[in-house]
Amino acid sequence: MEELYIGVDLGGTKILAGIFNSEHHCLASDKTKTMPEDGYVAVCSRIVETIRSAAELVGIDPAKVNGAGIGAPGSISSDESRVLFAPNLGWRDAPLKADLEAQLGCPVWLGNDCNVAATGIHRLELEAKPNDMVSLFLGTGIGAGIITNGVFLSGATRAAGEVGHMVLDPDGPVCGCGTRGCFEALASRTAIFNKVKSAVNDGGELTQLMVADDESVTRIRSGKLRRAVEAADKLAVHVLDETCFYTGLAIANLCNLLNPEVVALGGGLIEQLHPVMVPKIRDAALERTMPGSRQVRIMATALGDDAGITGAAILAHDHN
Amino acid sequence: MEELYIGVDLGGTKILAGIFNSEHHCLASDKTKTMPEDGYVAVCSRIVETIRSAAELVGIDPAKVNGAGIGAPGSISSDESRVLFAPNLGWRDAPLKADLEAQLGCPVWLGNDCNVAATGIHRLELEAKPNDMVSLFLGTGIGAGIITNGVFLSGATRAAGEVGHMVLDPDGPVCGCGTRGCFEALASRTAIFNKVKSAVNDGGELTQLMVADDESVTRIRSGKLRRAVEAADKLAVHVLDETCFYTGLAIANLCNLLNPEVVALGGGLIEQLHPVMVPKIRDAALERTMPGSRQVRIMATALGDDAGITGAAILAHDHN
Repeated sequence: MEELYIGVDLGGTKILAGIFNSEHHCLASDKTKTMPEDGYVAVCSRIVETIRSAAELVGIDPAKVNGAGIGAPGSISSDESRVLFAPNLGWRDAPLKADLEAQLGCPVWLGNDCNVAATGIHRLELEAKPNDMVSLFLGTGIGAGIITNGVFLSGATRAAGEVGHMVLDPDGPVCGCGTRGCFEALASRTAIFNKVKSAVNDGGELTQLMVADDESVTRIRSGKLRRAVEAADKLAVHVLDETCFYTGLAIANLCNLLNPEVVALGGGLIEQLHPVMVPKIRDAALERTMPGSRQVRIMATALGDDAGITGAAILAHDHN
Repeated sequence: MEELYIGVDLGGTKILAGIFNSEHHCLASDKTKTMPEDGYVAVCSRIVETIRSAAELVGIDPAKVNGAGIGAPGSISSDESRVLFAPNLGWRDAPLKADLEAQLGCPVWLGNDCNVAATGIHRLELEAKPNDMVSLFLGTGIGAGIITNGVFLSGATRAAGEVGHMVLDPDGPVCGCGTRGCFEALASRTAIFNKVKSAVNDGGELTQLMVADDESVTRIRSGKLRRAVEAADKLAVHVLDETCFYTGLAIANLCNLLNPEVVALGGGLIEQLHPVMVPKIRDAALERTMPGSRQVRIMATALGDDAGITGAAILAHDHN
């Protein structure tokens, strides 16, 4: 029987699940909303449902696959069994491996979502298998999977890689964490929407991003931003330029510090807008990168939104 | 016969050399000015002279020691034989190991100055031998030796660790590297003196740091700054507070990214001013460090200026 693996990307907003063969090719996938406010048990059930509906598309029984990998947004215990802390889900020390194994009937392994997506990019996309690499994901928040000396950076208490909270401007806007001028407060999708909202509130120019009520502004998706930028909407172009500038600044800091071979960009914003964003990000980064690190390759991942599920399936495959 | 090792800290301003026993205890040391403008051959001769005069103090022949370690300010080839690039010395691909071995008659190994000093701190000062650690040196410039997963960070082209060029304020002063708002342009001794100079030029308040002519302002040493701060000189206190603020910001960024167990501070500024600086730096850092990394210990090295020669002697000892 063919080897099969399940890969799950568990985010604060959506759950994406895919069924993969042993060549890491995705045979089918499905997604659903996470709705973390319903609590841990409900989210576990939704993960299982999403896996079952992807499995149905190719007519397989999840209990018969070789294993499932889950990328979760938080710090993961070193034995890959528990989600230690996931603020976006409101989870602390959640025994996700045991709970999913009981419901799925196949072995399950957990990884940090950014590290798992970085694994997907490293294994499927980068022939050279760099020993030093940064994968940076720009979406509602900002996260990274970082490899140094061939190993994922985890830190003393498994809390490393919080690039979203790198201060880039001490006079910048206040971040969700309470600090002023974090990368995430300057360049995430949340930051973009905050800027659009305050421009609209200030009675600025007409914009395609402008909508009738406040609430729907907060719901603007990356696709809408892309269409507004393509139509040369002034506000949209301006906020996207700022995002590229700060992302370039953050990448320069990471290059000067870590001297990676590759910086791979992913996440919702990049998936929708990489043709506009990547050249601007690259210019802002290389202008500030020291000569010794300027050989770095800055690219958008071709895996797009599938980097996470691909890496999660690889995590399960590697444990087989 | 007793095992003996030579440790050399080669800086852009001064050369420090020490003779160490196998317990890494310093038996004697001497120093001289580097004067890199005289060229590579002259600096090599000065390194040898400094070693000889330290050796004379304890009546030994450098040719009879077990080996010499040299911490040099730049990137070092992976076989520890050549200084690939040292902008402060004006060197490119300098065969320092071979040239010093010919003159000294003992084996020589090279290391990056910050990594070598970090080795001294890690081996002699930190009982717990952390796998994740940042050593940050504040002086004329700013450098770091970084250990992640138990290994020194070197990067794809041995250019990692350039913390001095982390941008902390995109509207800040222009750095020597051409970028605006680098950590080094905001918080090094050079930055402090630039601030004092422009305050004096702007006809600011009377200050103990003020002197008759511009040139001597650029020569203020850390000791003079310490005495002015102790005397509550307003300008001195103000510039030092700014230095502590930006150093705290940089440490928060490093903690959020690398999640180290220890941040050890060293260099000329810290040696002179650690009782004033360390509490302020710690407050600014912890305020911006994410909860998962807040267990970090932020301390000044007790080795002071000897961290470099101690680590260099350990480098030679480890090769024996």
